[in-house]
Amino acid sequence: MTTAYSQLRATFTRLSRFTHLSAVAGWDMQTMMPPEGSKARSEALAELSVLHHQILTAPKVGEWLEQATQEDLNDLEQSNLREMARQYRHSALLPESLVEAKSLAGARCEHAWRRQRPANDWEGFADNLREVVKLSRQEATLRAEAAGISRYDALLDLYEPGMTAQKLDGIFGELKSWLPQLLQTVVEKQRAIDFVQPHGPFAIDKQKALGLNVMKRLGFNFDAGRLDISAHPFCGGVPQDVRITTRYNENEFITAMMGVIHETGHARYEQNLPKEWLGQPVAHARSMGVHESQSLLFEMQLGCSERFLKSIFPLVIEQFGEREGLDVTNFINLNQRVQPGLIRVDADELSYPAHVILRYEIEQALIEGEIEVEDIPALWSSKMQQYLGLDTVGNYTNGCMQDIHWTDGGFGYFPTYTLGAMYAAQLFQTANKAIPTLQDDISRGDLTALFQWLNQNIWQHGSRFSTDQLMKNATGETLNTDYFRKHLESRYL
Amino acid sequence: MTTAYSQLRATFTRLSRFTHLSAVAGWDMQTMMPPEGSKARSEALAELSVLHHQILTAPKVGEWLEQATQEDLNDLEQSNLREMARQYRHSALLPESLVEAKSLAGARCEHAWRRQRPANDWEGFADNLREVVKLSRQEATLRAEAAGISRYDALLDLYEPGMTAQKLDGIFGELKSWLPQLLQTVVEKQRAIDFVQPHGPFAIDKQKALGLNVMKRLGFNFDAGRLDISAHPFCGGVPQDVRITTRYNENEFITAMMGVIHETGHARYEQNLPKEWLGQPVAHARSMGVHESQSLLFEMQLGCSERFLKSIFPLVIEQFGEREGLDVTNFINLNQRVQPGLIRVDADELSYPAHVILRYEIEQALIEGEIEVEDIPALWSSKMQQYLGLDTVGNYTNGCMQDIHWTDGGFGYFPTYTLGAMYAAQLFQTANKAIPTLQDDISRGDLTALFQWLNQNIWQHGSRFSTDQLMKNATGETLNTDYFRKHLESRYL
Repeated sequence: MTTAYSQLRATFTRLSRFTHLSAVAGWDMQTMMPPEGSKARSEALAELSVLHHQILTAPKVGEWLEQATQEDLNDLEQSNLREMARQYRHSALLPESLVEAKSLAGARCEHAWRRQRPANDWEGFADNLREVVKLSRQEATLRAEAAGISRYDALLDLYEPGMTAQKLDGIFGELKSWLPQLLQTVVEKQRAIDFVQPHGPFAIDKQKALGLNVMKRLGFNFDAGRLDISAHPFCGGVPQDVRITTRYNENEFITAMMGVIHETGHARYEQNLPKEWLGQPVAHARSMGVHESQSLLFEMQLGCSERFLKSIFPLVIEQFGEREGLDVTNFINLNQRVQPGLIRVDADELSYPAHVILRYEIEQALIEGEIEVEDIPALWSSKMQQYLGLDTVGNYTNGCMQDIHWTDGGFGYFPTYTLGAMYAAQLFQTANKAIPTLQDDISRGDLTALFQWLNQNIWQHGSRFSTDQLMKNATGETLNTDYFRKHLESRYL
Repeated sequence: MTTAYSQLRATFTRLSRFTHLSAVAGWDMQTMMPPEGSKARSEALAELSVLHHQILTAPKVGEWLEQATQEDLNDLEQSNLREMARQYRHSALLPESLVEAKSLAGARCEHAWRRQRPANDWEGFADNLREVVKLSRQEATLRAEAAGISRYDALLDLYEPGMTAQKLDGIFGELKSWLPQLLQTVVEKQRAIDFVQPHGPFAIDKQKALGLNVMKRLGFNFDAGRLDISAHPFCGGVPQDVRITTRYNENEFITAMMGVIHETGHARYEQNLPKEWLGQPVAHARSMGVHESQSLLFEMQLGCSERFLKSIFPLVIEQFGEREGLDVTNFINLNQRVQPGLIRVDADELSYPAHVILRYEIEQALIEGEIEVEDIPALWSSKMQQYLGLDTVGNYTNGCMQDIHWTDGGFGYFPTYTLGAMYAAQLFQTANKAIPTLQDDISRGDLTALFQWLNQNIWQHGSRFSTDQLMKNATGETLNTDYFRKHLESRYL
């Protein structure tokens, strides 16, 4: 019998095939495509995205979703149905005219931003951003009305289902109560350390070889993925073929190496999503926050730990040989250096939350209509002063114009970075308790047990559970900021 | 007013965007994709191909095509309409069940062939090939009935519109009347030459650098294309972003270099198709034969000429330095060596037509039902003996199982190789007359005038004219085998 659920299953399988093609073409655009291919590629991707939207929001899909709730489904099928309904709701809510207008305004704003940011041209940028904010508010209003929640919560739900501004206010409020003081203490403490920049150049092919060796150590499956170069590191592709990237600078190798470790965390999550469910929504990674928890577990919890850095130091020497400044203590110090700065993407793990909280507070007020675009610079400067003690007055380039996220209306995304950092701390400490040998394992470079634990507790579940449920199953409780505090204190104090 | 023609235009623009995505994903599959990505990629491409077929063969398209013939269209629009109708006819003719059955049988046959060929397993291969032939005959019958032409002609028309077995019999008959004797004479003559294999190894990065430099010399636009590596060289991508490939062997560099020159000929055709018409059928390359004429003009007419080889010899030395066997005379000799052998893809330009004629005669009889699969080996051996004086009895691996073309039913394609070689000779000799300085230009490495001539006479016209008309406009006459004979005699006698 053809059930409504089986029709949905076939439809989402079909959609996942189109997603596969846009993932490959998108990856290619960032890594391989010569400049003149750009227009045709964008048009091809837009055409596919229109098709995807049409298939997903066809009236039949709505009917099947309703009928399927009456059908006899097992647990996993019910989770799958819930995720199908979520995708349908998110897409079907918006009139095509709004989707198109937002996409155009976003493309225009982002395009101009690439010139305006280096020119510190806030006025020019604000003109375009106003349109993006207007359309994002319209989007948020439609989503909010349908879901019976606030406007900003409706956007948060796109990236971190179930998360709300109220919860975030609590979580970030707690961080704000102890993090600034801790940061100051650590900065003071590190004054005593003599950080030495290892002597370059570090040839790009050797940096690449180091990255590949570290990926091997981290269990990356090279039969189902690749490492390439792009302007901004990312993890793309599809679960069967995960494409990560990094960028190289001959003067130093740590940034590229840590980029690889971070993206490998994302990649292993993707490579270990439930195989037999691939193509169905339940097999997707749970959320942006959980995705970031895996990359930050790899990069920060594991990657920047003393034991891990010691364990990979021979791989570093293997590529670059003995050099001035390339001793293991300095290597660890450089990776654990705390240095508040203006730029989020360069921030250490102690400063990073301040960057995110600042953005969260501004974008939340912006979407709720409490502030306007012209209020951003003053708020940015005052919060930067308050949270990190840095002056950004008049510096838009490295202030409120530094990120790409707002240019195309990605409001609600920023919080997932710090949620990810906190989930990562909670998961890693739980894994440490569950695996008594873990610290020794790390020193020996044998991460099998850790990866087994992550697979059993996170990777293999895809979107089967809500984030809260996933964290409860894995750690016995929902998000608890104590783990993050404990991690930072034990590493940096 | 929305005309039927404008509806068609929009539909074909949309189709070209999907073709763009399958071109990128197809290129990636051959050059970048790790093995575990294969299944999902094939499924995604198949899904897109089903979609493409559905859009192209929708009843509306048929109606619009009929209505548009009554609309007021200019010359180019009429050519575009003719090409649209051609695509529609080719796709709409076949029932989906036959398309699917042929695609499955082809995939099965090709897959098994990869094992069977090295194992010299003709019996195993023949079992699968029988099914492919059966379905190809069904396809040919449907196409033939609709067009009122013979079965094999209907397949020829897919690759070389307007070509017929009757014309081919004439053309190939002529070649057969003088080529075997010429070949023998040249082989005799070359006995006097001492061919020396230049001393390797030839590092792959240096071979690549040489290839890139030669591509620059040949006017390849690197802002709209790339060079990569694949098991079999090809030219893929889209006109705005042309992807060519070659393969490297450290022991010798000439094969990879000549592969690059050949594919650059295809690439420049693609890169110079009429820009303002891209996305429409009239902007496609005219035919497989004309496409091959461009690659062979680059590789054989230009690339293997004494003047050109002399002009790029410094680029060779720049990469590899002075070495044993690497002098300019020997470099020219190696590129003009005539050595009949069993393998088509390794054949020199004098032996190549024999390989093609042999295949043409067999596949034509096979499709017309005059012979059966089991007759192939004996025919192959007798023709190989007759045309090239070589014995292939019992050697299926390097005999009738050497090519991939028949495995998935690509009957009708082989003749385009030799048609391309003959078009190339005709075009190049005409260009030589039109550009009095051409031979000196080649020696100086300045190919501007040649490329201008090709652009004016071939590239920019896309599919505006029939092949016969295109050749007439460019050279004053339709295909004439005298040019090819003259070329071979002047180079080799």
